[in-house]
Amino acid sequence: MSKTTMKKKKPKAKKPGVLFARVAFIGIGHIGSSMALAMRRGGVTGSIIACDKSAAHRKTALKLGIVNEATADAAKAVKGADLVVIATPISTNGAIAKAIAPHLKPGAIITDVGSVKQEVIKAVAPHIPKGVTFVPGHPLAGTEHSGPQAGFAELFDGRWAVLTPLPRTPAKAVAKVETMWKRMGAKVDTMNPAHHDRVLAITSHLPHLCAFTVVGTATDLAEDLKQEVIQFSASGFRDFTRVAASDPVMWRDIFLSNREAVLEILQRFTEDLAGMQKHIRRGDGAALEKMFARTRAIRRGIIEAKQA
Amino acid sequence: MSKTTMKKKKPKAKKPGVLFARVAFIGIGHIGSSMALAMRRGGVTGSIIACDKSAAHRKTALKLGIVNEATADAAKAVKGADLVVIATPISTNGAIAKAIAPHLKPGAIITDVGSVKQEVIKAVAPHIPKGVTFVPGHPLAGTEHSGPQAGFAELFDGRWAVLTPLPRTPAKAVAKVETMWKRMGAKVDTMNPAHHDRVLAITSHLPHLCAFTVVGTATDLAEDLKQEVIQFSASGFRDFTRVAASDPVMWRDIFLSNREAVLEILQRFTEDLAGMQKHIRRGDGAALEKMFARTRAIRRGIIEAKQA
Repeated sequence: MSKTTMKKKKPKAKKPGVLFARVAFIGIGHIGSSMALAMRRGGVTGSIIACDKSAAHRKTALKLGIVNEATADAAKAVKGADLVVIATPISTNGAIAKAIAPHLKPGAIITDVGSVKQEVIKAVAPHIPKGVTFVPGHPLAGTEHSGPQAGFAELFDGRWAVLTPLPRTPAKAVAKVETMWKRMGAKVDTMNPAHHDRVLAITSHLPHLCAFTVVGTATDLAEDLKQEVIQFSASGFRDFTRVAASDPVMWRDIFLSNREAVLEILQRFTEDLAGMQKHIRRGDGAALEKMFARTRAIRRGIIEAKQA
Repeated sequence: MSKTTMKKKKPKAKKPGVLFARVAFIGIGHIGSSMALAMRRGGVTGSIIACDKSAAHRKTALKLGIVNEATADAAKAVKGADLVVIATPISTNGAIAKAIAPHLKPGAIITDVGSVKQEVIKAVAPHIPKGVTFVPGHPLAGTEHSGPQAGFAELFDGRWAVLTPLPRTPAKAVAKVETMWKRMGAKVDTMNPAHHDRVLAITSHLPHLCAFTVVGTATDLAEDLKQEVIQFSASGFRDFTRVAASDPVMWRDIFLSNREAVLEILQRFTEDLAGMQKHIRRGDGAALEKMFARTRAIRRGIIEAKQA
């Protein structure tokens, strides 16, 4: 191969250029740091600055080379950023949007990662200045671990990132965020915010609430029983404890922000659970078997959708 | 190496001899076939005969070389067997014990794999003839799959097998079943039957009931919502559907047989869930955060116990 050919290759003909020259993260925890690493891997950005109120998070993110700069000053972080990612617990998002609004670069895009969309939009959208676009988003990925030391670039590979743009959100900005997620390994779908919140209430929030509650119930058991619950946790309980070890503040905010949808699905669930309880109490084996048999259809659907 | 040395090696000086020359399985489903394969791997037995009412199971178990013989006749199966393993849904165990009792070989050991111990002991023990020993057991292992085609020898590796002998059960027979499980890859613990049932109610039966119910609740959703629940199942719900795909008859029997312990723990759980619901409805973030934070201690216990 001649040197000329080599030179021709240098402008990365096959590799697309960066999408956002400068990205600012507000919050560089588990999700923020994983996104930063996935962005670097996907060549999404040139430089990354993180704002985090935790000095330990800032130090870790710098030390691990996840970000180029770190600051405790949100206004400073967003200055000149082409993309701002809000990746903090939902309850803080409104105040953050208000604080950064005057410092945003014209033409910048803001996105977020919140597990609830309606409340985040309600809190953030009013603060977005003219010339800046907010594209609400939610990557359906995460582990029970917290902090930038738990971040990894592969977190979003093959997982869904859901965007919930408003009718007024420019399609171009939505497309750009979509491209970003795809280059970070994710699959992308767009959805109405209210619909997103209902779907997540059943697929994520209710299962997590069950897990938190079951593990909480076990926590109240007598000490000798608790020791054996730990020893024999492999029989189903262990997965619940993993889920229930997730960040308490993040989950507090999810349940408070998606209150309506969670309470609605919780109402259905407790009715169904009361039905199960009645069948068990009465010894109605036929009814139990029927209940257990019908849930297999959903599992089949998941296997067919290749999500198993 | 001389031929003499080779010959000397043949009696398997290092490898212990078979524990049970002939083993009979009543039921050769997922657990029975996995046990048979683990027994072969561990050199526990010489020959294995299976009784199963399903012609398809018998055919598969023979075809896959899991058993040496297969029959629909339980009396025939147990004839001459040194160990009889009952591996059928719990509700059938009493009738099986009664049917095989007159045909058991003097000195034989019977064991079972039921997820509930008090009811199984109550149903089986009265039928055990003099000279035969019943050692109730429960391997804490399994997948959501069913049938002999789902069996594999590694299922019990590193998992617990709990034995719940009665005060009158000869220690020698218990020790033999313990050795058997260890040679099949499992760790063994012994426990009081009532205590076993309480521990399993919280570690296994309650989590399974939650999963069955959550998936059942989702099954009742409107069709469009259901499709998205399947698409976005990765966010917590997927694990629940895997659990909820477990054998309906097996689980029906577990809930009916462990009724008292399940209802007791379910009562505590629903109280705790109502507490969560109240906090969500009232928007009491501090209470929710406190609840979510305390469940981490149990998870830490599991990690320290190396069960994570």
